[in-house]
Amino acid sequence: MDKVLDFIFKRRSIRAYKDTPLSEKDIKSLLEAGMASANASNRKPWHFVVVDDRAVLNELADTHPYGGMLRNAALAIAVCGDTAISDWWVQDCSASTENILLAATALGLGAVWIGCHNRIEREDAVRKVLKIPATVGVLSLISIGYPDETKRARTQYSEKKVHRNNW
Amino acid sequence: MDKVLDFIFKRRSIRAYKDTPLSEKDIKSLLEAGMASANASNRKPWHFVVVDDRAVLNELADTHPYGGMLRNAALAIAVCGDTAISDWWVQDCSASTENILLAATALGLGAVWIGCHNRIEREDAVRKVLKIPATVGVLSLISIGYPDETKRARTQYSEKKVHRNNW
Repeated sequence: MDKVLDFIFKRRSIRAYKDTPLSEKDIKSLLEAGMASANASNRKPWHFVVVDDRAVLNELADTHPYGGMLRNAALAIAVCGDTAISDWWVQDCSASTENILLAATALGLGAVWIGCHNRIEREDAVRKVLKIPATVGVLSLISIGYPDETKRARTQYSEKKVHRNNW
Repeated sequence: MDKVLDFIFKRRSIRAYKDTPLSEKDIKSLLEAGMASANASNRKPWHFVVVDDRAVLNELADTHPYGGMLRNAALAIAVCGDTAISDWWVQDCSASTENILLAATALGLGAVWIGCHNRIEREDAVRKVLKIPATVGVLSLISIGYPDETKRARTQYSEKKVHRNNW
């Protein structure tokens, strides 16, 4: 129980990676975690583009203003949502992204959430590189690899953010 | 490691609760988890309204079309985002909501995500009950209690949702 909470606190943005590929087993675990997240009316609007082709990773790095770490990542996952299936896809795919980040932490991997949706030029650029249909939103890119930096577990708990029974 | 993944798969929407209050320790753990989630540029736009006043829980149940289970919940947490702090608040607060749901599972609690933002009438109604400022978005209500129903762990993994290197 406390171990699970520990992993929630251990999840940090990791942008430096060792030159070690991920196993297919771990890739599947990450995707299973992504598909186990809470989502509105269980419509599961998500799709995942798994990228391990170095040329495509480099192209994504060139494309996204905060994507430089993809050049050294073993893997990227683009978390996408079919806008025709659910208009809750942004929230659903955000929960899915968080699940994948936590699963990565649990598997001894390092990962970071690279925001796409909410900046139309970033979303469109990634859509173009990965040939994602126009009706599908691109919520995030997740950059993943074996960590080559360490960060301490933390909560950023602050009493000021807590209200009781009303604001 | 696998234990953490287990909790990701164990998280299910739990809407039936025993008549048992939560400890303040567990409430704080839930909030710590919520404040440890990934968020854009670490701006931490979130605020949390913790509701354990039975009259307020009932009022929320009356207010939200899918909030009936709040009548039997020990606690609700409204996950809110200060729109002036970050225009990524929807994604940040969705990740935070997922973290709280996972922490609840880890603590032996049951919880369910009740969507608010994205349906303006629901968001406004909850804002009114909880006296939340107009500049603060209400992403979700989380209904929480000791579970009085059990659901099996699952992933909803589907190959059809996975694409490799491009769509």
